[in-house]
Amino acid sequence: MKKTLFALAALGAFAGAASAQSSVTLFGVVDVAGRYVKNGDVKQWQLANNGNSSSRFGVRGVEDLGGGLKAGFWLESAINPDSGTADSSKFWGRRSTVSLMGNFGEVRLGRDKTPTQLALESSDPFGATGIADISNLYVSAPGSTVVSKSRADNMVQYFLPSTLGGVYGTLAVAAGEGTTGAKYMGGRIGWKSGPVDVSFAYGRNEEVLGNEDLDLYVLAGTYDFGVAKLFASFQNAEIDNMKDRLLTVGTAVPFGAGEFRASYSKVDGKGGAIDDREADKFAIGYVHNLSKRTALYTTYAYIKNDGTGAYSVAGNGATSAQLRGEKSQGFDLGIRHSF
Amino acid sequence: MKKTLFALAALGAFAGAASAQSSVTLFGVVDVAGRYVKNGDVKQWQLANNGNSSSRFGVRGVEDLGGGLKAGFWLESAINPDSGTADSSKFWGRRSTVSLMGNFGEVRLGRDKTPTQLALESSDPFGATGIADISNLYVSAPGSTVVSKSRADNMVQYFLPSTLGGVYGTLAVAAGEGTTGAKYMGGRIGWKSGPVDVSFAYGRNEEVLGNEDLDLYVLAGTYDFGVAKLFASFQNAEIDNMKDRLLTVGTAVPFGAGEFRASYSKVDGKGGAIDDREADKFAIGYVHNLSKRTALYTTYAYIKNDGTGAYSVAGNGATSAQLRGEKSQGFDLGIRHSF
Amino acid sequence: MKKTLFALAALGAFAGAASAQSSVTLFGVVDVAGRYVKNGDVKQWQLANNGNSSSRFGVRGVEDLGGGLKAGFWLESAINPDSGTADSSKFWGRRSTVSLMGNFGEVRLGRDKTPTQLALESSDPFGATGIADISNLYVSAPGSTVVSKSRADNMVQYFLPSTLGGVYGTLAVAAGEGTTGAKYMGGRIGWKSGPVDVSFAYGRNEEVLGNEDLDLYVLAGTYDFGVAKLFASFQNAEIDNMKDRLLTVGTAVPFGAGEFRASYSKVDGKGGAIDDREADKFAIGYVHNLSKRTALYTTYAYIKNDGTGAYSVAGNGATSAQLRGEKSQGFDLGIRHSF
Repeated sequence: MKKTLFALAALGAFAGAASAQSSVTLFGVVDVAGRYVKNGDVKQWQLANNGNSSSRFGVRGVEDLGGGLKAGFWLESAINPDSGTADSSKFWGRRSTVSLMGNFGEVRLGRDKTPTQLALESSDPFGATGIADISNLYVSAPGSTVVSKSRADNMVQYFLPSTLGGVYGTLAVAAGEGTTGAKYMGGRIGWKSGPVDVSFAYGRNEEVLGNEDLDLYVLAGTYDFGVAKLFASFQNAEIDNMKDRLLTVGTAVPFGAGEFRASYSKVDGKGGAIDDREADKFAIGYVHNLSKRTALYTTYAYIKNDGTGAYSVAGNGATSAQLRGEKSQGFDLGIRHSF
Repeated sequence: MKKTLFALAALGAFAGAASAQSSVTLFGVVDVAGRYVKNGDVKQWQLANNGNSSSRFGVRGVEDLGGGLKAGFWLESAINPDSGTADSSKFWGRRSTVSLMGNFGEVRLGRDKTPTQLALESSDPFGATGIADISNLYVSAPGSTVVSKSRADNMVQYFLPSTLGGVYGTLAVAAGEGTTGAKYMGGRIGWKSGPVDVSFAYGRNEEVLGNEDLDLYVLAGTYDFGVAKLFASFQNAEIDNMKDRLLTVGTAVPFGAGEFRASYSKVDGKGGAIDDREADKFAIGYVHNLSKRTALYTTYAYIKNDGTGAYSVAGNGATSAQLRGEKSQGFDLGIRHSF
Repeated sequence: MKKTLFALAALGAFAGAASAQSSVTLFGVVDVAGRYVKNGDVKQWQLANNGNSSSRFGVRGVEDLGGGLKAGFWLESAINPDSGTADSSKFWGRRSTVSLMGNFGEVRLGRDKTPTQLALESSDPFGATGIADISNLYVSAPGSTVVSKSRADNMVQYFLPSTLGGVYGTLAVAAGEGTTGAKYMGGRIGWKSGPVDVSFAYGRNEEVLGNEDLDLYVLAGTYDFGVAKLFASFQNAEIDNMKDRLLTVGTAVPFGAGEFRASYSKVDGKGGAIDDREADKFAIGYVHNLSKRTALYTTYAYIKNDGTGAYSVAGNGATSAQLRGEKSQGFDLGIRHSF
């Protein structure tokens, strides 16, 4: 994803030394695909978004404050190019943060992805996007809305510096400000060295089900053999007497200008409202890079629901009742363009 | 409309050869006018938008992929500068597309104008905007919403290449995805050579009135004599037992740094709920260009409703009952600034 | 607040003479703070916005038309980075204007701040932002919504040229277009010379309370001694039999790379629904500039309500009943980054 940079400072100083240390970047992705989805017996052709990467529009920047200190901001807005909509309730909902960075690491304030979400995404060869998205098997916590599972408002985050010999980590707390399920704390610790990248993340959404908290644990890792990269993760979600376990393994195989991808996931719910909520997911795909910024792609994903499982590769109007215990399949062919 | 270009690629490469082939453009229009509107006996002074050109904010770009292949994107958002609003339901509703272009032409995916709309606009000396807008005499299909008359979601379009000796054309299909009236197919074929530009466009919105489709036919043409350009179009809309015919003739006469414009339109509804819904429209205007980007303009438009016709040059709080068979008049004086 | 400029005109002309006369600027502020608010007995920790400057995203530009004439536009959108939201009802609600400028001054059309608001803000050492904001003691006109107190839609403004020996001024009228309380007229006249800056502003919002108008009078001034700048203002709001008076004095003291700030305000309502609605506000703060674009800041503000006064330094879920006659206190520590 090559980005658009434009110079800071007075006009004419585009090549100046001072401005070279600071930058503001306008960036984005437009990703649209033709897609066919069959959920149980319900079939639909769609023009769909985000088969390969989430469509977005954003502005971000870094300012060098001298003495190793930097300030930065990041504003990122979701786009649905198939219908021209943005996120009408949270326009900058993908990310809206301001940061202070230095030898100590980074302090970041605002709305952002949670540590557990980042860990889970890192272990999905499909980048947690589209019909093969690992998140299609996410459990929805019963009884209440978890407002800060993948992203959280009002978050204060601390990131370790990148000078710790491959060790990386985050601590995050989010103020609830009186909104049920919004209070959050979490963290992630990982190690990246050569071909290895492993991390463990934990997150707690407080009082999402009456007085009960949702606890999320994610263990994720990748190993890059060069001819192929392997992905694996295990997520455990617990609330009250319910447990939801999600296991994923996958691979990405470079092939000339392109890449083959495949993944298998299994989700298994136990206890209470999610008891016997099970599914298996298989996905394969190919991404053909026309340039660093532009790619054509195709994906096939298949979910086999068991018990009370009613997961789908994508919505197509089918109800949960029509999906329960049934198969969901999808196929797409699309183009992703970054700017 | 001169546009804002800013360079791609790493800072410092602003003059680089590689970056010269790709570009991202931030663009827009802010158009505001003082306007007086009298509908029947209801009078109102307004600060109004878009008297000369639709106010907008957008980002678009083209990437050269080599071998004659190009990728492009276009995001365009409507603005109402008089009150500071955007389109809250479809922020990027003016256009949100990604394209692949080459010797074969262009494949474009996303929300965009329909072929019939483009044909009709091309034959309006007022650019289908403001109180003189040809669209002010559009029939609203009775009984159901036509969601994709001027623009359509979920559209796959193919454009002929520009190497066919002046012949141009488009084919478009839009997935309905379960939304009533959203399924669409249409196309346009035209010929442009020297002073002549003629085109025919057809569009079908499926099942907009129960099981009935709306069929739109537009024949449009312009001829540029140099001292004056002539415009003419005929639109026929048919649904169930109803027919709505819209005839327009107009002219644009260059005059120094400016341009005089005039148009006459006649609309005639027959059958069912639109029977006897008739109106005539006269409009004259002058646009004075202060630069390529900035213009002052003034317009006068007059609609004479007949039968059950209740068209207006602009809304001003008058009800349809107050407008039926009555006159509607408007006058504006404004400034249009493009960036 | 250093701004991001990017060149107009064709790529490659970044250093061209022609483009140097025109510019389009992408700009913004991201300001987030940790904040503690105690209203009566209700306490809350928050991640809050705009402790030092209102977070925003904007695009603006000026075009040189030659002969001393210029055209300009300004689009500015509010951001709440703590939760990623924009202003969903008025996306460009901070400002959306187009201007024509010359020796005669400036004519500006669209949504903008009112003259009285500008006068009041100029006399607040805290820039009318955050927990110390002078506006926290604004009276809310009873009985009806005043839709155009701080900003107005549909406004036509005239600004005096800057060549009048330090005299500056504005005249503004806003069309009501049938919306109750939207019709507005106002103006401001001031004098700025050396250390002195004084201005008087008046604004009338028509028919905000049945047939009654709201009249606002603001007298504001600053005097810069160098070692300290003094601020003072008096606002009188009158509607029907009600009068609301707001007095403010403040100071800003430069201190190395930073600035100390303090203010005292007193508001006193008389008559009708606002009778006996009183409060005193004390605020102190320190802003430490890390660069021209980035600052750390901390603020403490304290409101002592009297009678039926129920003002607060910031909302935290406490009701008016819980605030009436009680104290409100707040403390923040934040970062403001401009781009």
